[in-house]
Amino acid sequence: MNKRNIIMDCDPGHDDAIAMILAVANQNTLSIEAITTVGGNVDVEKNTLNALKVCDIIQLNDVPVAKGAERPLVKDIVVAESIHGESGLEGPNLPDVPTKQAESVHAVDLISDKLHKSNGPMTIVATGPLTNVAMVLIKEPELKHKIKEIVLMGGGTFGNWTPAAEFNFYVDAEAAHVVFNSGIPIRMFGLDVTHQVQATDQVISRISNIDNHVSEFIVELLRFFNKTYQDVFHFDGAPIHDACTIAYLIDPAMFKFKHVHVDIETKGEHTYGMTAVDRLGVTGKEPNVYFAYEADTTKFWDLLERSIAFYSDK
Amino acid sequence: MNKRNIIMDCDPGHDDAIAMILAVANQNTLSIEAITTVGGNVDVEKNTLNALKVCDIIQLNDVPVAKGAERPLVKDIVVAESIHGESGLEGPNLPDVPTKQAESVHAVDLISDKLHKSNGPMTIVATGPLTNVAMVLIKEPELKHKIKEIVLMGGGTFGNWTPAAEFNFYVDAEAAHVVFNSGIPIRMFGLDVTHQVQATDQVISRISNIDNHVSEFIVELLRFFNKTYQDVFHFDGAPIHDACTIAYLIDPAMFKFKHVHVDIETKGEHTYGMTAVDRLGVTGKEPNVYFAYEADTTKFWDLLERSIAFYSDK
Amino acid sequence: MNKRNIIMDCDPGHDDAIAMILAVANQNTLSIEAITTVGGNVDVEKNTLNALKVCDIIQLNDVPVAKGAERPLVKDIVVAESIHGESGLEGPNLPDVPTKQAESVHAVDLISDKLHKSNGPMTIVATGPLTNVAMVLIKEPELKHKIKEIVLMGGGTFGNWTPAAEFNFYVDAEAAHVVFNSGIPIRMFGLDVTHQVQATDQVISRISNIDNHVSEFIVELLRFFNKTYQDVFHFDGAPIHDACTIAYLIDPAMFKFKHVHVDIETKGEHTYGMTAVDRLGVTGKEPNVYFAYEADTTKFWDLLERSIAFYSDK
Amino acid sequence: MNKRNIIMDCDPGHDDAIAMILAVANQNTLSIEAITTVGGNVDVEKNTLNALKVCDIIQLNDVPVAKGAERPLVKDIVVAESIHGESGLEGPNLPDVPTKQAESVHAVDLISDKLHKSNGPMTIVATGPLTNVAMVLIKEPELKHKIKEIVLMGGGTFGNWTPAAEFNFYVDAEAAHVVFNSGIPIRMFGLDVTHQVQATDQVISRISNIDNHVSEFIVELLRFFNKTYQDVFHFDGAPIHDACTIAYLIDPAMFKFKHVHVDIETKGEHTYGMTAVDRLGVTGKEPNVYFAYEADTTKFWDLLERSIAFYSDK
Repeated sequence: MNKRNIIMDCDPGHDDAIAMILAVANQNTLSIEAITTVGGNVDVEKNTLNALKVCDIIQLNDVPVAKGAERPLVKDIVVAESIHGESGLEGPNLPDVPTKQAESVHAVDLISDKLHKSNGPMTIVATGPLTNVAMVLIKEPELKHKIKEIVLMGGGTFGNWTPAAEFNFYVDAEAAHVVFNSGIPIRMFGLDVTHQVQATDQVISRISNIDNHVSEFIVELLRFFNKTYQDVFHFDGAPIHDACTIAYLIDPAMFKFKHVHVDIETKGEHTYGMTAVDRLGVTGKEPNVYFAYEADTTKFWDLLERSIAFYSDK
Repeated sequence: MNKRNIIMDCDPGHDDAIAMILAVANQNTLSIEAITTVGGNVDVEKNTLNALKVCDIIQLNDVPVAKGAERPLVKDIVVAESIHGESGLEGPNLPDVPTKQAESVHAVDLISDKLHKSNGPMTIVATGPLTNVAMVLIKEPELKHKIKEIVLMGGGTFGNWTPAAEFNFYVDAEAAHVVFNSGIPIRMFGLDVTHQVQATDQVISRISNIDNHVSEFIVELLRFFNKTYQDVFHFDGAPIHDACTIAYLIDPAMFKFKHVHVDIETKGEHTYGMTAVDRLGVTGKEPNVYFAYEADTTKFWDLLERSIAFYSDK
Repeated sequence: MNKRNIIMDCDPGHDDAIAMILAVANQNTLSIEAITTVGGNVDVEKNTLNALKVCDIIQLNDVPVAKGAERPLVKDIVVAESIHGESGLEGPNLPDVPTKQAESVHAVDLISDKLHKSNGPMTIVATGPLTNVAMVLIKEPELKHKIKEIVLMGGGTFGNWTPAAEFNFYVDAEAAHVVFNSGIPIRMFGLDVTHQVQATDQVISRISNIDNHVSEFIVELLRFFNKTYQDVFHFDGAPIHDACTIAYLIDPAMFKFKHVHVDIETKGEHTYGMTAVDRLGVTGKEPNVYFAYEADTTKFWDLLERSIAFYSDK
Repeated sequence: MNKRNIIMDCDPGHDDAIAMILAVANQNTLSIEAITTVGGNVDVEKNTLNALKVCDIIQLNDVPVAKGAERPLVKDIVVAESIHGESGLEGPNLPDVPTKQAESVHAVDLISDKLHKSNGPMTIVATGPLTNVAMVLIKEPELKHKIKEIVLMGGGTFGNWTPAAEFNFYVDAEAAHVVFNSGIPIRMFGLDVTHQVQATDQVISRISNIDNHVSEFIVELLRFFNKTYQDVFHFDGAPIHDACTIAYLIDPAMFKFKHVHVDIETKGEHTYGMTAVDRLGVTGKEPNVYFAYEADTTKFWDLLERSIAFYSDK
């Protein structure tokens, strides 16, 4: 099997960090071409610092990291410090300054450049607001032919930031609209499926038993993340939303999908950023999204365990 | 226990008809003060004819029936002939002309009059679009003090007419907005709970065994209704949406509720008529709705069976 | 010439009061069948009191006055006390309690009743928010065939309450939408034309010279109204908006009209209540409104002077 | 006086072409640093070709021309071939292929690069949809400190493409929203002022008398442009909208401005792309725009005449 070339566009973020850890542990199936950041969970400066620090931890030295959009396309920025803490990656003790440095190029330009230079089409894995990805598509619509698939975390048939909208799409609904109407194949991991992947105490204890520096980092991450999910949403464990995207790329059979039409609401008073997912087929519109509705959580936690164990402490 | 005085505002409609049958069979707990009709499942002329014909079948002779709004407050009318057939009550063989006649007064005026003249507060059971009820509240806001509770079928955390909106609230979202912001206690039976109450073949066969003229009528109703739900929505059996309201009034313990804030979307491009149900409490707004999320279906079908058996053929 | 039978639906209001004075002085051409009130300039209680007090002043004893909607169809109420003062008719010294009393019937019902009983079609003169008129049309759409024309003050190609919206339509844009889409002929006197009819000091001095109790009342009204228009809008004189409707009925040649399509904005973030007036014909939609764009102000002030002089002090 | 360094972002376009001609003839006061194009009057390919052809005619050889956004930020593209003809510059006989070639860099990158490298702040003259300018500001918000002023054609208190919206802002209201909320000083030349600058037959005849190759080109342009304005809008002469921006930079005293708050409507059903211009100060919001409301047309035509005469045929 050929490796899939991926660009990870993200806003780390606890679950983004776990997505990165999964990806690096599975470079036999995935080739990470770039990591780009976007304003989302916290501001883009912090998200970029966090991405670099995670790279340090997992010794991802040779992949370029570029900082991207600090604001959404149209709306004012919103951040989720109530969920991810002030730094965006609260929990673990991390050095103030990462060893690795970001490229001087803007994320939008790095993505465009990678797509232009790629022989075959690439996969974009987007786990934050879709501002960077939309910017690429607005600026150079023809680049869509160089994108094999956009595998993203966002949306759902219910919301978490408002009753109707999930956070990533609430931050930049217009960007989501651009991406969902681009004609590019989309794998959507929304709250319907990511809420099935909750890191309960049992999960944390299993990870803890692996006992290397990555398991230790993840355990500290999850203890903080679980606490905010318990406090804010009364959940037993925090959903590892963003990691679903990478888990799918490693083992596509881990999720069930329905091919449906999804519209993004950008005008609503109470529904801005909502994904209107046509599961019953009542709109009569052509499907534009592979909507993930079920996760095989046994497989998911097994994969996560194996992947963490990959990082033997040297 | 005191009987509850109810006004049934409806658009029969297969499931409205079953709600009426339930109510009449349980007049030991409910006192039906009026039946009013509204444009919805089909146009208000047909809905009114259907209400009168159902009254004939269940010999509800002494309760006034009044025709109401033929159009929504703001939007153009939409009807659901794809679901309820051309007459709005396709399936059973019914006479063209009912014996019972409608009052000459408008539904809005009949409701107002009943409220004005009532000693204690009344309960409004609304199983169609909320146009009539909203009109009463717009015209005479003070009448809200004469309304104990509005028990309604509508909305849900997902839609059936569009991906986001349930039919009744899609027809007249502005009316729903008026009602939900009135300060009157609301019991909301939306798709989340009504889809739990599906009349499968097993249910139909159980009803068929009762073998009186009402069971025969309902079986014919349900055979037609089930077929459209199978064709349009690929359901095993049609949900008896509207009957949940009356079932609750007879046996409140049959349903579980969460007290939440609900907003009605009237501006959205893809979400007009949606109920934004704040189950996670993220809006910080005061609860205005008792949202039914679980039905005890065993109790429901038992009640329905008992109620149909009430109509012994004389 | 046959007299036109008119119903005046209003929210007096300084300029509404002048419209009433004009109408009563010209009963050779107009027959006032009813006066109905609506929440607008101030709340409907005050507007009704003011209507009754004006009736006292102009000895309009035999025409029924009925109180109408205290709130708009959908939105929360907004009032304009900054323009009309706390009572809604600040300026003149008026008794606390009027001699004349309001009917017990609701404005919506009085209008419906008058239309039902009228032999020929009637003209509705609407100078406040269109809530009552819309309620009549929603409740009984067929009554539109009994309405010859709706002559109204509202809208314009620019706003006064917001940059885009005139006050009456900002208060209840949904009601305006219902009326403008009813198919009934509409004469629209919006800000484009009413701002041409400004009561400058010269006008006030001319009225003052008439020297009867009505001229005295109007002079006191206008002194207050001018002051608020100077303070809030920096105008030389207050526009006598509402009186344009009655002036047109007395002398249709006083205004120039263009037959155009007008849509009412009900969804906009910055444009709620705006009238989108298609003067260039770019929408391709059928005209639904006679849009007044020019007033012969010489004729207007002459008519006002003649009409005030009609009220000789007895 | 120091020359102002300008970037012209445009969609030529008849009136854009005249703006370019004006600018080149007045390089004693203006230094043209770049010309960038955007999808608008016609598609961006054609607009770019037209820009290059106009450069040929006016021998503007040393200024880079870069092609920009072919689509708006969020909405689908709309073009105005009904106004500008199929090529976007119908009227004059032009060679199929221009001598001058566009840069390979994207307009957004050229603008960013010019701003980064400039010592002092630059002026952006935007006469098409604001997509490119908004993209620069979304991608690198800090670049706003390198922009002295944005001098633009767009908006107005009335519309030409819809009753409410002017074409440029109707094409990309979201981009206009981004620019108007950027905090950068804005000079807005909307329809209120550009409709004062109509090229009547008298104007055309005056230009014709200059008799050089540029006057000939402009006369052919205007004959076509006038015909479409007469056919579509029933105007006596076509407004030279875009040229107002450059005329202002050459002679600021030619226009009168009011400092006001302007909001861009992006949600409205009938008002998308409208500029809500708060001329009466009713919103209480801080002014963000210098709104041009009056042109000294004598000065304008004199300037145009002088500028065309500058192109002596060599």
